[in-house]
Amino acid sequence: MTTTSKPPAASAVEQNVYKVFPNDLNSKYTVFGGLVMSLCDRTALIVAERHSGKTCVTAAVDSLNFLAPARAGDTLVVKAAVNRSWRSSMEIGVHVAAEDSFSGDTRHVVSAYLTFVALDEAGKPASVPAVAPQSDVETKRYEEAGERRAIRLAARSR
Amino acid sequence: MTTTSKPPAASAVEQNVYKVFPNDLNSKYTVFGGLVMSLCDRTALIVAERHSGKTCVTAAVDSLNFLAPARAGDTLVVKAAVNRSWRSSMEIGVHVAAEDSFSGDTRHVVSAYLTFVALDEAGKPASVPAVAPQSDVETKRYEEAGERRAIRLAARSR
Amino acid sequence: MTTTSKPPAASAVEQNVYKVFPNDLNSKYTVFGGLVMSLCDRTALIVAERHSGKTCVTAAVDSLNFLAPARAGDTLVVKAAVNRSWRSSMEIGVHVAAEDSFSGDTRHVVSAYLTFVALDEAGKPASVPAVAPQSDVETKRYEEAGERRAIRLAARSR
Amino acid sequence: MTTTSKPPAASAVEQNVYKVFPNDLNSKYTVFGGLVMSLCDRTALIVAERHSGKTCVTAAVDSLNFLAPARAGDTLVVKAAVNRSWRSSMEIGVHVAAEDSFSGDTRHVVSAYLTFVALDEAGKPASVPAVAPQSDVETKRYEEAGERRAIRLAARSR
Amino acid sequence: MTTTSKPPAASAVEQNVYKVFPNDLNSKYTVFGGLVMSLCDRTALIVAERHSGKTCVTAAVDSLNFLAPARAGDTLVVKAAVNRSWRSSMEIGVHVAAEDSFSGDTRHVVSAYLTFVALDEAGKPASVPAVAPQSDVETKRYEEAGERRAIRLAARSR
Amino acid sequence: MTTTSKPPAASAVEQNVYKVFPNDLNSKYTVFGGLVMSLCDRTALIVAERHSGKTCVTAAVDSLNFLAPARAGDTLVVKAAVNRSWRSSMEIGVHVAAEDSFSGDTRHVVSAYLTFVALDEAGKPASVPAVAPQSDVETKRYEEAGERRAIRLAARSR
Repeated sequence: MTTTSKPPAASAVEQNVYKVFPNDLNSKYTVFGGLVMSLCDRTALIVAERHSGKTCVTAAVDSLNFLAPARAGDTLVVKAAVNRSWRSSMEIGVHVAAEDSFSGDTRHVVSAYLTFVALDEAGKPASVPAVAPQSDVETKRYEEAGERRAIRLAARSR
Repeated sequence: MTTTSKPPAASAVEQNVYKVFPNDLNSKYTVFGGLVMSLCDRTALIVAERHSGKTCVTAAVDSLNFLAPARAGDTLVVKAAVNRSWRSSMEIGVHVAAEDSFSGDTRHVVSAYLTFVALDEAGKPASVPAVAPQSDVETKRYEEAGERRAIRLAARSR
Repeated sequence: MTTTSKPPAASAVEQNVYKVFPNDLNSKYTVFGGLVMSLCDRTALIVAERHSGKTCVTAAVDSLNFLAPARAGDTLVVKAAVNRSWRSSMEIGVHVAAEDSFSGDTRHVVSAYLTFVALDEAGKPASVPAVAPQSDVETKRYEEAGERRAIRLAARSR
Repeated sequence: MTTTSKPPAASAVEQNVYKVFPNDLNSKYTVFGGLVMSLCDRTALIVAERHSGKTCVTAAVDSLNFLAPARAGDTLVVKAAVNRSWRSSMEIGVHVAAEDSFSGDTRHVVSAYLTFVALDEAGKPASVPAVAPQSDVETKRYEEAGERRAIRLAARSR
Repeated sequence: MTTTSKPPAASAVEQNVYKVFPNDLNSKYTVFGGLVMSLCDRTALIVAERHSGKTCVTAAVDSLNFLAPARAGDTLVVKAAVNRSWRSSMEIGVHVAAEDSFSGDTRHVVSAYLTFVALDEAGKPASVPAVAPQSDVETKRYEEAGERRAIRLAARSR
Repeated sequence: MTTTSKPPAASAVEQNVYKVFPNDLNSKYTVFGGLVMSLCDRTALIVAERHSGKTCVTAAVDSLNFLAPARAGDTLVVKAAVNRSWRSSMEIGVHVAAEDSFSGDTRHVVSAYLTFVALDEAGKPASVPAVAPQSDVETKRYEEAGERRAIRLAARSR
């Protein structure tokens, strides 16, 4: 149980940027999945620690979809925000765009939902603030996060 | 459509090992999620390229669950195998254990399902061999992969 | 000479975040200077390429001052914007804060000015858009960038 | 002296895989030696720590031969096993193949022998289990390890 | 104030070499600025710690100029020496050349001045030895370091 | 066969320095072997390419012995020189010391002999200059390199 609530904007990362490096490319000159996953995790972790004020660990990647390839020369632009929290866990939504810095064009390349757990000093799960959505979009994300969790719990109990 | 089929064993990675390094640890001395995700992706990619005989890219992490933390000094042991394939995509299952090299104890730390797509020379999706399960376990994985895909397609159509 | 001008906001990076990793620390548990320099350069490069629409290379670090140490567990928050441009070069200002994600406290840790040059297809210096400051702060930065350049040119001619 | 013995299979790494990355290549598009050496050391270290149940350090690379180049796109497949042990040291044999994941062809690219020493809590050399070869190949490796050591000791005493 | 003085040669790094790797290159196949900055900082840090005999941290990059691009295949050759010291700070001069290992040609690619501060056990600024220049070149560097500092202090007081 | 000869000093690396980073340490706070091997290879490669004026690849680590551990905070100082050459191959000797930057003490931590092969444009072995030793030490190294090679050829022919 938590006695406080915080809006998503208080912990969101608006624009984390990463210039694609040669080592990030496969033989088709598109970006390796593992690099993007790692970038999503590192950005989402910051959101979870800002929201909870505690050390957090990744509990799950609930889904992470590559919608289009990122290429050599692109700048990846990562946004992340907390959608909803439960006793000690939080769902963080991540959106990655690939920006062609020269033309300014951007493509949506990845959408992901990750769950983090906050830990207390002893390394045990610790309670986190509730999420107080402030806009229609944030309310929609809040409700969909609840539906996703219900589906996961149902799948696990099978 | 594919004219050939291959058993999972023909492309499986049985034992990919990674000794945890100091840079992989957070302030609780457990391993960062992003490192493990990247390791899962790199191992699963090898399975997908072995099964298809083509360059593959990650299409999705359908789920990746951290069941227990990996710690300083642990050796991560990664297993990956193709569960099922469709026209140009494959579901790869990944299992990560953390082994205490001194005592020999191992703990199951991560289970993951990733989808990869094979590409032809022009970078377009290319057909891949069917998966021919050879054992009860492989047949179970084959069928569950079909169920997971049905759930994902249903979720997407909503 | 350029026929267009762009405001700083069109290319600014508002919030590039980087969670300090164990490998980034010296024996006093503060962050190595080289890591922060590299982070400043990578962020400023994105601003220069967004402003010019061309491949850019670092011409100089005109100054980069460490005002306070960043520590283990901090999240570095990097902001960068173009202050002024000349024929083919741009001064990019960079501000790095260290955020204690748990308390939310931030400290200003680095201020830096870097000069980038835009290149054409042949790798020769290429003209870049003028900078059109929109606010008092942007106008002040524009004028100070001119003064800094005059001092550098005077120092070089000695 | 040690009171126990263990077969090589109890500590062997059967199949450590590493997909070659762009950063691993020289200007001839073959893999840098240092990357392969490091991979051999990291894999052999796991074998040494499994066999001894103690923290181990590399004492020597007795020989490491590149038989054929590994190339862009290859998957390196590393096998390592303990050949023989002495009071506190172990010879680990390492075999690296380069697999063309598309054709399935593999080439033997590196053979190496490394010596590791086990350390006790105080950082002093600690006794390790004897090696109990179970097959003709393992017995041959056991005896050749003894010959290699005799040659090294003779060379050192000159 | 310090009771000892040391010549620059006692702490200088004469020839730190770094072979450019594929990951260090941008799309024009020249070396990223951040890599060179980091290399300058890591080399200058060693000089500062040798001169002071204490843990040092980077206080500032006072200037760092790219005079020519470094390219794929080049070997970077870094020289660094202490120019002058004050109560607890030191100016380190760094010179980077790019060597074409095949022809033996070298080009001067970077000149930089960095300021480091020595720290005592408690992490507070600690006194460092004076610099005793031994040659005309070292004396010239010593005096110019004083002029650069005067200009910086004047700029700061404005 | 080669028509020219060069002294070792023309290609030697006198002082390659590397400050040990946290990620380089094992749980005993000593440096991982793989890091040192990689550093030896990267330094020796520069010597081989300077001596031959051609792209070189590692053919073998003939021996690499750890004489003492390197520790957290140490600066590794690497020296490398060509000992002798044959038609298209060269033996490079490498010496690594660990320097305590604070006290100035150094310990000899690694001695290594590596063999490199020079390649022509087509990637085939190419002739390299002879080595012309200039001092007693260089002559001794030249002759011992011949003896080491004889022992290796004898071992291979068994």
